[in-house]
Amino acid sequence: MASTIRSVAVVGSGVIGASWALLFLNKGLRVVMSDPAQNAEEVFRKYITDAKTKEGRASELQSFWERFEFVDDITTKLPEVDFVQENGPERLELKERIIASIDEHTRPDVVIASSSSGLPPSAFITKCERNPGRVLVGHPFNPPHLIPLVEVVPHPGSSEDSVTIALEFYRSLGKRPIRLHKEVPGFVANRLQAAINNEAYSLITRGVVSASDLDAAVSSGPGLRWALTGPIAINTLGGGGGASGFGQRLERLGPSIRGWEQDILRNRFTWGETELAKLRDEVNKSFGETDWSEIIRERDAVLMSLLEDKQKASSLV
Amino acid sequence: MASTIRSVAVVGSGVIGASWALLFLNKGLRVVMSDPAQNAEEVFRKYITDAKTKEGRASELQSFWERFEFVDDITTKLPEVDFVQENGPERLELKERIIASIDEHTRPDVVIASSSSGLPPSAFITKCERNPGRVLVGHPFNPPHLIPLVEVVPHPGSSEDSVTIALEFYRSLGKRPIRLHKEVPGFVANRLQAAINNEAYSLITRGVVSASDLDAAVSSGPGLRWALTGPIAINTLGGGGGASGFGQRLERLGPSIRGWEQDILRNRFTWGETELAKLRDEVNKSFGETDWSEIIRERDAVLMSLLEDKQKASSLV
Repeated sequence: MASTIRSVAVVGSGVIGASWALLFLNKGLRVVMSDPAQNAEEVFRKYITDAKTKEGRASELQSFWERFEFVDDITTKLPEVDFVQENGPERLELKERIIASIDEHTRPDVVIASSSSGLPPSAFITKCERNPGRVLVGHPFNPPHLIPLVEVVPHPGSSEDSVTIALEFYRSLGKRPIRLHKEVPGFVANRLQAAINNEAYSLITRGVVSASDLDAAVSSGPGLRWALTGPIAINTLGGGGGASGFGQRLERLGPSIRGWEQDILRNRFTWGETELAKLRDEVNKSFGETDWSEIIRERDAVLMSLLEDKQKASSLV
Repeated sequence: MASTIRSVAVVGSGVIGASWALLFLNKGLRVVMSDPAQNAEEVFRKYITDAKTKEGRASELQSFWERFEFVDDITTKLPEVDFVQENGPERLELKERIIASIDEHTRPDVVIASSSSGLPPSAFITKCERNPGRVLVGHPFNPPHLIPLVEVVPHPGSSEDSVTIALEFYRSLGKRPIRLHKEVPGFVANRLQAAINNEAYSLITRGVVSASDLDAAVSSGPGLRWALTGPIAINTLGGGGGASGFGQRLERLGPSIRGWEQDILRNRFTWGETELAKLRDEVNKSFGETDWSEIIRERDAVLMSLLEDKQKASSLV
């Protein structure tokens, strides 16, 4: 089970793979990594060194490098690892080939998780000849070493054991995995983002609000609650909490909400050229002069503090 | 202008009115309040006393009560106030009558803001005989004394001056007002919530995720970002930041997003009886045994800390 996982193969060292590896090294695991890109090892070692230096924990680096190996051919190392996190490009043929090769060279009980955000697992296991039942998606939210969410998405032939092992492994790293019972396009978090973004684009394009006011409507309003409790808990608390809170909320506000939904549907953002041009124009009006580096710096600082506060609050997820 | 506002009439002392009054008193303003409910004054005084005691600032109470008056008939006091925040029930005929009476008794340049979340301002100014041009919606997000967002919604006949005064007044209280340029059902924040909630209900009802995993998909994932930056800034940063970040994000992810949107549309939650029963059942399975009081306590503590952190981060809204 999860507790026996001591070494992980990180296949692909791009933004997502590198951040996964940082998490695994932070948690004391051994990491073997590969990536065909030029200078990939050098880029990764600099990323880790910079990250730990920035955290004021450069002293941990020696232990990190003792537990780390970058190899040209990962297949030679796969028989030794206890878990695989694959982070290759989102191109179907390539992904099929990579996953098949990992399947061929790992022990048959080792779980193979793909960071794929777009391709469903049933699409890329087609060339696996050994045990496709231990392949699933473990889709992180960027950056994986900070944001707790991982979406675990099995395909119809994934074994329950593999799902359990993946969930427990991610949990043991301090992450908050969720388990999908069906493959749906965009999984859960990206669908929820798409839903809110479509209405955001529509309101801006229709001239209802500026792009900066739209953003404030989230980050100074409901966004403050979404960081602490999800939509269902918010609805339940809005209905007075307790076992009947959610039902009461739906009953009381249902008619209003259905009216809003109808108006949202009628005014959907449909990605037409004129709409897109107007949207880009409005975003540029609001954010054309923005100092993004300052926003990133302040966002990361507040995010770290928020994650620490939430870790102490055991009733929040 | 805003800086000359020294006294506010708070019409209606329910949950929203009471929280507005707490904010106004915290900011040193005079408050005159009325509410026809039995014991309304007593309930309000207890609410304020409890809130300040909990904050460890009970010493401020004396100054509060010196600046506070509860009256049976607010019309006698309206000629003296510099701003009105109306919080009556969301029933059209009643709202029309209340707003007309406030219009009749206030000085004609005093801005009258309604906390209405559902009724658009053009619907309830119809009986105003004096100056409906200074009536608008100032819709807070619950609770108004904590959550910065206020949606300022003028009707087509609202004067630009009134909008400016309302925006500046709310800003002077430390709030983050946004300005709507059109009356749309649900305004902005409730529409965005409706968009995400519909897809949440759909995913739960379809058996894709449990209700608690759905909540975690928000509060351990994108919700953490929505508390700090809005959807447009998130898109822009996802596209590498800078002037072209937003456009690049749309171009790169547009095709995927449109696919997700089509699937979301095909699977909309349509509020059918069977769907509703299944949804309530799933919510009960996840949250039937939840200790809501603990969640409220921890949520409020983390929220206070988050708001303090954000206040120090001037680039975040």
